[in-house]
Amino acid sequence: MDQTLLMLPGPTNVSNRVLQAISKNVVNHRSAIFGEILTETSQLMSDLFKTNDQSYLLTGSGTAAMEASIANILNPNDKVLNVISGKFGERMRDITNSFGGKSVELNIEWGNSVKPEDIEEELEKDENIKFVTVVHNETSTGVAAPIKEIGNVLKNYNALYVVDTVSSLGGDHVDVDKYGIDICFTGSQKCLAAPPGMAAITVSDDGWKVIDDVDSSTYYLDLKKYRKYGAGTPPETPYTPSVTLVYGLWEALKIIFEEGLDTRIRRHERASKATREAIKAIGLKLFPEEEVSSTTVTAINMPDGVSDSELRGTMRNEYKVELAGGQDHLKGNVFRIGHMGNITYKELVITFSALEMTLKKLGFDIDLGVGVAEVNRTFI
Amino acid sequence: MDQTLLMLPGPTNVSNRVLQAISKNVVNHRSAIFGEILTETSQLMSDLFKTNDQSYLLTGSGTAAMEASIANILNPNDKVLNVISGKFGERMRDITNSFGGKSVELNIEWGNSVKPEDIEEELEKDENIKFVTVVHNETSTGVAAPIKEIGNVLKNYNALYVVDTVSSLGGDHVDVDKYGIDICFTGSQKCLAAPPGMAAITVSDDGWKVIDDVDSSTYYLDLKKYRKYGAGTPPETPYTPSVTLVYGLWEALKIIFEEGLDTRIRRHERASKATREAIKAIGLKLFPEEEVSSTTVTAINMPDGVSDSELRGTMRNEYKVELAGGQDHLKGNVFRIGHMGNITYKELVITFSALEMTLKKLGFDIDLGVGVAEVNRTFI
Repeated sequence: MDQTLLMLPGPTNVSNRVLQAISKNVVNHRSAIFGEILTETSQLMSDLFKTNDQSYLLTGSGTAAMEASIANILNPNDKVLNVISGKFGERMRDITNSFGGKSVELNIEWGNSVKPEDIEEELEKDENIKFVTVVHNETSTGVAAPIKEIGNVLKNYNALYVVDTVSSLGGDHVDVDKYGIDICFTGSQKCLAAPPGMAAITVSDDGWKVIDDVDSSTYYLDLKKYRKYGAGTPPETPYTPSVTLVYGLWEALKIIFEEGLDTRIRRHERASKATREAIKAIGLKLFPEEEVSSTTVTAINMPDGVSDSELRGTMRNEYKVELAGGQDHLKGNVFRIGHMGNITYKELVITFSALEMTLKKLGFDIDLGVGVAEVNRTFI
Repeated sequence: MDQTLLMLPGPTNVSNRVLQAISKNVVNHRSAIFGEILTETSQLMSDLFKTNDQSYLLTGSGTAAMEASIANILNPNDKVLNVISGKFGERMRDITNSFGGKSVELNIEWGNSVKPEDIEEELEKDENIKFVTVVHNETSTGVAAPIKEIGNVLKNYNALYVVDTVSSLGGDHVDVDKYGIDICFTGSQKCLAAPPGMAAITVSDDGWKVIDDVDSSTYYLDLKKYRKYGAGTPPETPYTPSVTLVYGLWEALKIIFEEGLDTRIRRHERASKATREAIKAIGLKLFPEEEVSSTTVTAINMPDGVSDSELRGTMRNEYKVELAGGQDHLKGNVFRIGHMGNITYKELVITFSALEMTLKKLGFDIDLGVGVAEVNRTFI
């Protein structure tokens, strides 16, 4: 396998420690030893979510958890407020519709962030909104939503609060219990820096009350079954979990708490600031306004006169650094630098060296070193 | 992680070669290099299914693939013939009902096998059966269904043929195109001897025609999306796949074809025969009739006067061999020996040594060595 540096908004670079953990022997998933691993891993997930509620591990991608977060609390024709400011907000709407819900769309222009008062307005207009879905970190646009402030608004309404923290948990502030989040989920391959293929979800008491009243068609992602098996002796998952990926997630979570969550979030904040400063110094333009920028991924306007395949292709082929392109209507118009997981100044220095060489090679008049200098300035 | 020998009907012992493969660096799942791995792995899966149709890799357990096999071809109120002769047949019925189908149950006593003419009779009675679900290898009872002969019956009817080969593919005869199977699926952690967490599914042209006419609520397991992304350049999955487990599955499939599929199936047949002969020599009783026994798992009646926890607990704690217990109403009444994946005479010799020592320890009057001798006799 190649040694390309992944500067993607997931999957992120996985440490050797985690890669070694996943190559350990597979054990029986219905044994006491695996029950202990499951218990510890779930507890660390709850610690990371900052909740006293139980977390459950799902074998699947973040989208599996997204489906679980909606399908388990939705009866056909229920009204759902979907905040949509990018591709993942759209996905929450699509899942809402797929399971027969009535989506009320709160559309925000891509690159902007929802405001708590926008949500308040929608809830005032319609008291039948059963739940609100918010994507904390819109990977597609590099914008973070104010989930704490939205939580303060939602405390005045009955609607449940469902938050996608797939690309933010472990890299930005998430406090499930304090923000009043009822259902929160994440993926393994983003800020957690574990391999892809696992997701985690946690549910509040209010969330469970709704789940107990819903007869959902989903079977694989039926959370009632996860609760039942999770409460067993030993704790189990209803279906065979990806045992090796659980080892990986467990190890990745231990690494997070060894670093310390606050330290880790500050590192992400620093990496995002360094990225923005370096981009501006090089003379490129950030896609979103800086005050709403994500701490884990930065979206940048594609410079005039260069195609996505030239820019990202040169980065990948010549300099072995993998950046992400734009999604949907942003395809070709933006590129994205993921700075989540294990990213330090080292990876950013490599990335901006590669970006500067690439732009120079493609005929841009830039002073080599200016971006790297900004990274250094931020991390000094 | 401990070195307990897994003699389970999944997960099975994973070779070092596969464990090393999954500890390789994670690459971008939307890159050319991963597209090649996906293409090769899917092609090897189709070779294993013996089909000219495309196979798709799903990030999830066998149950995820089971849900995909049903939810994608089912409209509410469609009639489905579910053959039920164990826990996994019941699960297919439950998923059918969960997605609003009308399950017609063909119940077979646990430990027996369905007969093709039973299915014919049901199809003659009701021409509105849209599809028939069959579990090839009922892991819960150690019984194999005659999927070739059932396929011959189904060729005379319009109903689609859906077959669960989760615990048989790679260890027993499966020939998707020749048997006329429309939807076939499997899991990574059984006869394929890869870690758990991946599943694969293949669909015939007739199957796709039905899928194109169905508007399913499932989102994560929507096969239309897998087809669309799989046909891209590079081929992709709709959602982030478990990259490291794809490496593992790829390596496991290469190992299978290096051994040769026919040789591998003969090895499984031999292991099952050795197991049955050894069990009889020790004086224990097989749960199903021998002529319908599975080639990959053997279910054995729990001997009188000993509890499941004594028998399996001693095997596990004293001798480090992990057997499976009974499921549902067979709990405590049978125990099961999985002989799938990488199992050779070596693991069987260990298993029967451990079983003989365990029984002796628990007060049974047996001649030490009689089971092991039968294993040797079969493998000589």
